[in-house]
Amino acid sequence: MFLLTYFYEGSEAAGFLNSNKNGIIPASVVFSKLNVPAPSNMLNIIDVFDDLELDKINEAIVSCSEFIDLDKVKILSPIPYPRRNVICLGKNYLDHVKEVKNLKNVSADIPSKPIYFSKIAYPAIGQEDFVDMHQGIVKELDYEAELAVIIGKKGKNICKEEAEDYIFGYTICNDISARDLQQEHVQWHKGKSFDTFCPLGPVIAHKSTIAFPPELEIKSFINGEIRQNSNTRQLIFDIPTIISDLSSGITLYPGDIILTGTPAGVGAGFNPPKYLNPGDKMECFIEGIGTLVNTVK
Amino acid sequence: MFLLTYFYEGSEAAGFLNSNKNGIIPASVVFSKLNVPAPSNMLNIIDVFDDLELDKINEAIVSCSEFIDLDKVKILSPIPYPRRNVICLGKNYLDHVKEVKNLKNVSADIPSKPIYFSKIAYPAIGQEDFVDMHQGIVKELDYEAELAVIIGKKGKNICKEEAEDYIFGYTICNDISARDLQQEHVQWHKGKSFDTFCPLGPVIAHKSTIAFPPELEIKSFINGEIRQNSNTRQLIFDIPTIISDLSSGITLYPGDIILTGTPAGVGAGFNPPKYLNPGDKMECFIEGIGTLVNTVK
Repeated sequence: MFLLTYFYEGSEAAGFLNSNKNGIIPASVVFSKLNVPAPSNMLNIIDVFDDLELDKINEAIVSCSEFIDLDKVKILSPIPYPRRNVICLGKNYLDHVKEVKNLKNVSADIPSKPIYFSKIAYPAIGQEDFVDMHQGIVKELDYEAELAVIIGKKGKNICKEEAEDYIFGYTICNDISARDLQQEHVQWHKGKSFDTFCPLGPVIAHKSTIAFPPELEIKSFINGEIRQNSNTRQLIFDIPTIISDLSSGITLYPGDIILTGTPAGVGAGFNPPKYLNPGDKMECFIEGIGTLVNTVK
Repeated sequence: MFLLTYFYEGSEAAGFLNSNKNGIIPASVVFSKLNVPAPSNMLNIIDVFDDLELDKINEAIVSCSEFIDLDKVKILSPIPYPRRNVICLGKNYLDHVKEVKNLKNVSADIPSKPIYFSKIAYPAIGQEDFVDMHQGIVKELDYEAELAVIIGKKGKNICKEEAEDYIFGYTICNDISARDLQQEHVQWHKGKSFDTFCPLGPVIAHKSTIAFPPELEIKSFINGEIRQNSNTRQLIFDIPTIISDLSSGITLYPGDIILTGTPAGVGAGFNPPKYLNPGDKMECFIEGIGTLVNTVK
């Protein structure tokens, strides 16, 4: 089951991909078949999803013969305005830890605990949206393909064994980073939080679609050249560990977005670095979810 | 002019302090006198405030003879659910930079650029609310009195000269910190973001109430013992610099909360450290705003 947020005929809505993945069944249509009030957006869907039966939702989707042609909509970020900042992990793939050892204020040590920071995503941008180069402010623009976990249920002090229960699904994030400002400001928040720095999507793969824990190919391409090529099984801190550790003392809410880190192959890891330039096309692929495409402007 | 959010007779509302500061005029009453739709909360007030005339609001407040007795309400955080994480500055008073030089992952260097991180405040807690000790998770609980700037107007790439135009007002934050976890996780986000770690209030002082830039006494007391005692004129990066630098490439929104940093005298600065214990009463005072009082449980 795949969910997305889209713009069609003058308004924004959330919906489900049909089984051929060429069309959208609006969530309002699916929910009316279930006699549930129409959700106004993806956060609403996530809020009530746990109270519905997965089989019945799937049946309702399959029973809809009419759909909106996927080619006729603008795909938006699945969650354009998250309720809180996106929570990110730094240095969570071993090969990436090694490649960024020369960055200032990013030590070469393998982390003994997850490194969390946050990213402003207000709004998070969607498929085909432009990432702003911020010329005159940012000199070293970089990409990072990441598996994003979407929380489905409110929880705190979640044990590893129950972590999957608290997941709604997965999407892709390109954790755009201004390497120069990330280093100059010591803490990474500003360098990760510029406007347009959080492309998300194109869809959310519901957790029922992906075996747990996710062992998925993750790749990025810049102008067609492969840069990152790894598998989410390579995470230093795996998803149960992240959810358990993060929720220790901090309540997670439905719709929270957790970025699990990026593998080696970012621009900063090359010698000389391969930072982004206006016009560069970025593609972030994760097996079982899709490809998130954005261009630098 | 002072604004607050409060709980009274079973519901939450926003309002204004009367001129004697012993009562509340509900915002709905004030706005009806101005023929403006009633705001549903403080964020709504901030959103529309710039379209109203300050003198007329003040007149409307003064013209209300009836008020709710301040002693009969529970004062909540002025903004219980900020739209985005609270944006914080680290190491923004010289004497505080020196006192925390022994903390791991907190260098003793005087910052050459503002150090930004973010704090989850969902919800931010209010006057007299308890701060959770998180026993078994947090070992080194600390307090930090800070001047919080509330943004009033959407803006980006704001120049220093115009920074004041983008401010709505000021409140007090006790930037509660788990020093052990702040260090262990390298980036400070987790150690600053535990549930109940963002007491705010008790009121917002509208900017018309405070000369710009604010040069205000700032103090904290633990169980009546003075710990921090400084003045907001001692900021390394002053408010115009913060707003200008932060908004460079990042859009600020009405209701955004920026913590300007804390002066020397935090628990971690003492030898041996004076960390908090259950039952400790914390008072954060800022001249012209008031005293934010919370107890550790």
